[in-house]
Amino acid sequence: MNATTTESDLRVTPEAPVPPSPDSVLEHGRYFTSLPREYYLDEERFKSEVDRVWCEQWVYAGHVSQIPRPGDYFILNMQDESLIITRSSATEINAFHNVCRHRGLRLCQESKGHFGPRIVCPYHTWSYGRDGTLHKATRMTDGEFFDYADWGLAKAHVSVWQGFIFVSMAEKAPAPVSSMIDAKTNADMEMIEPLRMKVAVEKIYEADANWKLLLENGVECYHCPSVHPEFCVSLDASAMADYYAEDYLPNLVQGLIIPVKGELESLSMDGRYLSKKLLGKFGEGTPIPYAFGTGFMTQPGYAWGGFHPDYGMVASTLPVSAGRSIMICQWFVHEDAVEGVDYDVEEMIKIWDITNHQDLAIQERQQLGVSGRRYVPGPNSPSQEPGIHSALRKYLEMMGEPY
Amino acid sequence: MNATTTESDLRVTPEAPVPPSPDSVLEHGRYFTSLPREYYLDEERFKSEVDRVWCEQWVYAGHVSQIPRPGDYFILNMQDESLIITRSSATEINAFHNVCRHRGLRLCQESKGHFGPRIVCPYHTWSYGRDGTLHKATRMTDGEFFDYADWGLAKAHVSVWQGFIFVSMAEKAPAPVSSMIDAKTNADMEMIEPLRMKVAVEKIYEADANWKLLLENGVECYHCPSVHPEFCVSLDASAMADYYAEDYLPNLVQGLIIPVKGELESLSMDGRYLSKKLLGKFGEGTPIPYAFGTGFMTQPGYAWGGFHPDYGMVASTLPVSAGRSIMICQWFVHEDAVEGVDYDVEEMIKIWDITNHQDLAIQERQQLGVSGRRYVPGPNSPSQEPGIHSALRKYLEMMGEPY
Amino acid sequence: MNATTTESDLRVTPEAPVPPSPDSVLEHGRYFTSLPREYYLDEERFKSEVDRVWCEQWVYAGHVSQIPRPGDYFILNMQDESLIITRSSATEINAFHNVCRHRGLRLCQESKGHFGPRIVCPYHTWSYGRDGTLHKATRMTDGEFFDYADWGLAKAHVSVWQGFIFVSMAEKAPAPVSSMIDAKTNADMEMIEPLRMKVAVEKIYEADANWKLLLENGVECYHCPSVHPEFCVSLDASAMADYYAEDYLPNLVQGLIIPVKGELESLSMDGRYLSKKLLGKFGEGTPIPYAFGTGFMTQPGYAWGGFHPDYGMVASTLPVSAGRSIMICQWFVHEDAVEGVDYDVEEMIKIWDITNHQDLAIQERQQLGVSGRRYVPGPNSPSQEPGIHSALRKYLEMMGEPY
Repeated sequence: MNATTTESDLRVTPEAPVPPSPDSVLEHGRYFTSLPREYYLDEERFKSEVDRVWCEQWVYAGHVSQIPRPGDYFILNMQDESLIITRSSATEINAFHNVCRHRGLRLCQESKGHFGPRIVCPYHTWSYGRDGTLHKATRMTDGEFFDYADWGLAKAHVSVWQGFIFVSMAEKAPAPVSSMIDAKTNADMEMIEPLRMKVAVEKIYEADANWKLLLENGVECYHCPSVHPEFCVSLDASAMADYYAEDYLPNLVQGLIIPVKGELESLSMDGRYLSKKLLGKFGEGTPIPYAFGTGFMTQPGYAWGGFHPDYGMVASTLPVSAGRSIMICQWFVHEDAVEGVDYDVEEMIKIWDITNHQDLAIQERQQLGVSGRRYVPGPNSPSQEPGIHSALRKYLEMMGEPY
Repeated sequence: MNATTTESDLRVTPEAPVPPSPDSVLEHGRYFTSLPREYYLDEERFKSEVDRVWCEQWVYAGHVSQIPRPGDYFILNMQDESLIITRSSATEINAFHNVCRHRGLRLCQESKGHFGPRIVCPYHTWSYGRDGTLHKATRMTDGEFFDYADWGLAKAHVSVWQGFIFVSMAEKAPAPVSSMIDAKTNADMEMIEPLRMKVAVEKIYEADANWKLLLENGVECYHCPSVHPEFCVSLDASAMADYYAEDYLPNLVQGLIIPVKGELESLSMDGRYLSKKLLGKFGEGTPIPYAFGTGFMTQPGYAWGGFHPDYGMVASTLPVSAGRSIMICQWFVHEDAVEGVDYDVEEMIKIWDITNHQDLAIQERQQLGVSGRRYVPGPNSPSQEPGIHSALRKYLEMMGEPY
Repeated sequence: MNATTTESDLRVTPEAPVPPSPDSVLEHGRYFTSLPREYYLDEERFKSEVDRVWCEQWVYAGHVSQIPRPGDYFILNMQDESLIITRSSATEINAFHNVCRHRGLRLCQESKGHFGPRIVCPYHTWSYGRDGTLHKATRMTDGEFFDYADWGLAKAHVSVWQGFIFVSMAEKAPAPVSSMIDAKTNADMEMIEPLRMKVAVEKIYEADANWKLLLENGVECYHCPSVHPEFCVSLDASAMADYYAEDYLPNLVQGLIIPVKGELESLSMDGRYLSKKLLGKFGEGTPIPYAFGTGFMTQPGYAWGGFHPDYGMVASTLPVSAGRSIMICQWFVHEDAVEGVDYDVEEMIKIWDITNHQDLAIQERQQLGVSGRRYVPGPNSPSQEPGIHSALRKYLEMMGEPY
């Protein structure tokens, strides 16, 4: 972090403000709202959202430490899509559609594993290289009926930033994730040296709620005092709300600040460190900035990561159906941290686990309420919920609707 | 009961008979039928039925004894709708949509409870008075972005008759329930003093069957001898069939006669009383009329209540999906009756519990049969199944279809 | 088997070859494929397939040995349809729709049973004769409101060949099954005397896969070496593949050859007999032809039977939804074979049970892969997968689409 850089230099230039459309479902004169009822219920809209939003944006997939050796892979399942995230070589990470090009078998069933020199379909033993090229179609030679070159594994786009892997199934890749991140976030991230982290534990949550309710909840802290008393012990909820009012951008990916109260060490039940082995340069004596909490966000399909001097967590929401979502959480520690010595898994996940359960329980109740025929979205607070306005405008823009 | 009133005086004047429409799906020259196959299967029709029938009619919700004090409430869930039935003050009962006006949280999750002076949404602590008015939108003052007066809890219509609470989600309320009930039913009901009853026990049944099959079964006793041998021990099945042929009206709510065999005391496994503490005036020595059994019915969405000198039962069917329904049953006794002394719950519910299970098992088999592609509705009996004709004509009328 | 008959005499004349349609979804110039992605996913198409394919073709129902006495019945459930397969008299087998003609009750709930002289609906006691004629509509005399003759049980078509019962719900019955079977199959079948077999055991499998994936898998042996190592111990996989390349016809029903390796006795884990009591004439000393394995197939809705000198198996796939199927398997032995003496059930079912589980696991993985948005069907092998081409052309023809 360059001490001579001013705050304004550190901001990515926001897009020029767009005047609100009179046809937008969000704008109601003196107030704005969330989306109409059917936006959270309709299965046809949901399918369209998967096409136009989830398959277009950058979706958080995981971290390079999960696939250290060439041939290592893990799977990202997103609605009906399944991607194989694999290190094809020391320098190349690919995301292959997990589908044999012959008759469509799902190639990998395990959530992670290692490929030998060939990726072999068990149905008729068609085989592919680690780079996805078709190596052999059993009993059909190259060029006999078709050209092997046309039938390699289908690829999604990959963008790696600070070791975090993002994928997009769009025809044309969005701009690289690194180009979307502001200088301050990059500087803060570099202090924790993300390439030297590892995933200590992963946990999957389920919620009977539309994915956009998870997004809306994520981009406001209006609910923090009432819903998250434990979280508010160490979170500076007021500074968090300020982030959504001032620093938040409706970008596909962006830096995130998760401010801890200044006098505390980390985001935890009591404000103390959860891992003794501090991350990156902090373990080597670099002074810890005041209220340190850096991270990133993706949207409209919502993921967020928050990193403190000792540990971090990335939560990735994924759509299942109009009324159902999942959220996958990974907790990160220093690559040399030892479980049971430097950190205790149960203690480490506690603060986020409680907070996640509180949020998802709220979203399930909200889904039930929104389902009622008499529900119309109510006035949102311009000071407390501006992030909802921005995020939903981004959503409407991607859906090709007036925003 | 006024002994000088003649039977004909006691009848509500039925609507003038309507000539059958040649386009009605019920009319087939010499015979009439139930509805075509797809009426019991199609989910789009089901949604339309919830709008046009269930949200328009009076739906039985419960009894005033369930909410004696101001602030008391219970919940009525009907398909995607949830209503809070609450005593707002000593003299006012309201039915609020169970949805916060801000971002749509379901306010109450428990099936019953008690409100303090405020109804508070746990998400962002918006609060309402017991009468549903918006009291405080957190950090948004009245008139700042919107007027509080516009954002009180949404209300459904309420009609209370003899302590029984009925609700309607229609734009315009149907006529009050009391105006739909004939004089004889009112007189009979007054003898049992419904305001001095309590709910002894409630039981919920589930059935994989369309709600209209429950209705059709309920308005005929053609099946009683073959399906309900236990019920026919104390029920006068012949007089019951006469009711459907002669006294039954296709009204939204109406009085019902459930005639017990003259020589017996009550509707029970052996014809004897099920509660020692007789209801209303019967406990004070008023002679019990011959074959006493009074009650009420709602339709097309079907509920029925049957009351005898010692106890009563109300069964309320509710739609879940085209192929699924539930039925909630409440058993009533004198407010001073003591469980274990005056009545035994298992013994009291036995006759209706057996009968309900028999009916629902039949309706599940009927749903399976009706699902077959070759099913066409067969001839119904004019003498044994006239109630089906009337009830389905009412249904078609509300659906805006030829009847 | 007539030793003077030549091979070519034994073949049913195939239909004249049809030139491929340029609009067919199967044809891609140098190669052909299976069907596009949505054909395996879309519920509307699935419903249409049940109407146009499954309700039109001959579906395997069971074997005459299951209903030896008049009044005996068993049930065939196929998607929403339920048929009562019953022996109405010594010489008459009927398939009744399992639906009362009055208000549609499913008449029989047990999977098999025996009717007395009347088939009685338990709802209102309408009764039918064993031949399906309406005997009595309770309290409605014949001709009063309708004619009994019009309201007998609805019938499906029945075709019995070699004791195997096939049913069709088409308006007009397809040609009898016997007319579709070639002379060699008839001769081979007669050697095992199917009328003197019995069902030793039945087993039901479930798979989260479209029924056409089961069909496609069934008409190729390209996958046998990689998927079925146990099966390939006794199966002559090469001769099996030859059958699909040379003898297989895209007919509704046809003879099938399941060739055992010449030096072995039967299709089993080790190539030895699974029942000591040999079938038909083989038990009386008739020499067993080389590599003996006869049987039959139905399609597009896929069933197959394979019979060896000692036992046989019929597997019948049935559609549940676009993404779900079941498969019912019956194992046959000589009618005088004694369980525990002549055969052991666990040992007898082992080879097919392993093979079935392998196939269904593959098809579930294939359904998952095909669901991905980027799936396009790949090139099939003309030498290894010709049966897929023929079967899918038959399918498209029945669906009324270019083939």
